[in-house]
Amino acid sequence: MRDMMKQEVLLVVLDEYADWEAAFLAASLNAGVTPESGSKYVPKVVAPSLEPVRSIGGFRTVPDYGFETVPDDYAALVLIGGMRWRSDAAAGVVPLVRRAVERGKIVGAICNAASFLAAHGFLNVVRHTGNTLEQLKLWGGSAYTNETGYERRQAVADGGIVTANGTGYLEFTRELLFALEADSPERIRASYEFNKNGLYSV
Amino acid sequence: MRDMMKQEVLLVVLDEYADWEAAFLAASLNAGVTPESGSKYVPKVVAPSLEPVRSIGGFRTVPDYGFETVPDDYAALVLIGGMRWRSDAAAGVVPLVRRAVERGKIVGAICNAASFLAAHGFLNVVRHTGNTLEQLKLWGGSAYTNETGYERRQAVADGGIVTANGTGYLEFTRELLFALEADSPERIRASYEFNKNGLYSV
Repeated sequence: MRDMMKQEVLLVVLDEYADWEAAFLAASLNAGVTPESGSKYVPKVVAPSLEPVRSIGGFRTVPDYGFETVPDDYAALVLIGGMRWRSDAAAGVVPLVRRAVERGKIVGAICNAASFLAAHGFLNVVRHTGNTLEQLKLWGGSAYTNETGYERRQAVADGGIVTANGTGYLEFTRELLFALEADSPERIRASYEFNKNGLYSV
Repeated sequence: MRDMMKQEVLLVVLDEYADWEAAFLAASLNAGVTPESGSKYVPKVVAPSLEPVRSIGGFRTVPDYGFETVPDDYAALVLIGGMRWRSDAAAGVVPLVRRAVERGKIVGAICNAASFLAAHGFLNVVRHTGNTLEQLKLWGGSAYTNETGYERRQAVADGGIVTANGTGYLEFTRELLFALEADSPERIRASYEFNKNGLYSV
């Protein structure tokens, strides 16, 4: 019964997705930010079809949804970075993002997926980051008109859109957990510090 | 032809494996420590059977090998942490580790998988670490006789065995890449620093 109440967070992956960019977010959503805190969310893997996709690390992941079977109701749409965000497969994500933005859903994008958002004009009204400003301009071309909204940070959350560079996987996770109110701010911060700094300093 | 020359690194996962503990190692082995450096290794996912296993984050991963079909020839056997290292499924990993140790293969174990090694006497002749000394003693019982070999560090490599705590995922990756001579020490160190410290400090 409890699972029926959980809201889904959709993690969009393409072939050659970046394993580490999905890892902490998925675990925090599925198992809870801390082991004792539980979770009101459940992560679901979205891919072009129901065929397995392969991560950069070579892991074959079975999707929960294909682009054609994405549910109407969900809490956030999160685009996981990787090597295929300028491919034909990525083009199929554009209508998913447009619908999410129109309906006020939280949208996340990390690494090359942030550049993908720039390339389709989704970063023009929010403060944001990405791998580098140069990459956003290169991928964005004339569709990217918000150079002044770029911030040199690990992750930026503004107007319901969370962006990060590829080394910002922990900050991306933290900002999305904040945006989703997935747990108390204290526990989200403590989880971030634990994973960032480690148990020991050597 | 080139792929035929690559040595396999076996990553052992059980249900509820820790996504983040496999992510960086798999990506570094499959795509190279740096994008330009290439790789002489290929990661392969080993699970109890060929049925998909589910990560803590809820990702369903299709194994490359089951315990019964593990190949004879490989470079390293790496046990990825997770919630099932005291289950019946984990018992099936004992003969795999024994064979690897006997044949002088590199063995890695992180988080609860390090405690699993302690519980089966594999840490008694090497310096090592794990989640905490308390956990190693609790899981190890009388099979763990090497308390003086424990070090409070993120990761420890000694005698071909690499251990780490669950927040030591980057140090675990680094020490295994060193042990495998996967790239030059400089590039392995630079990759570690990049992923540990991030592109920006904010």
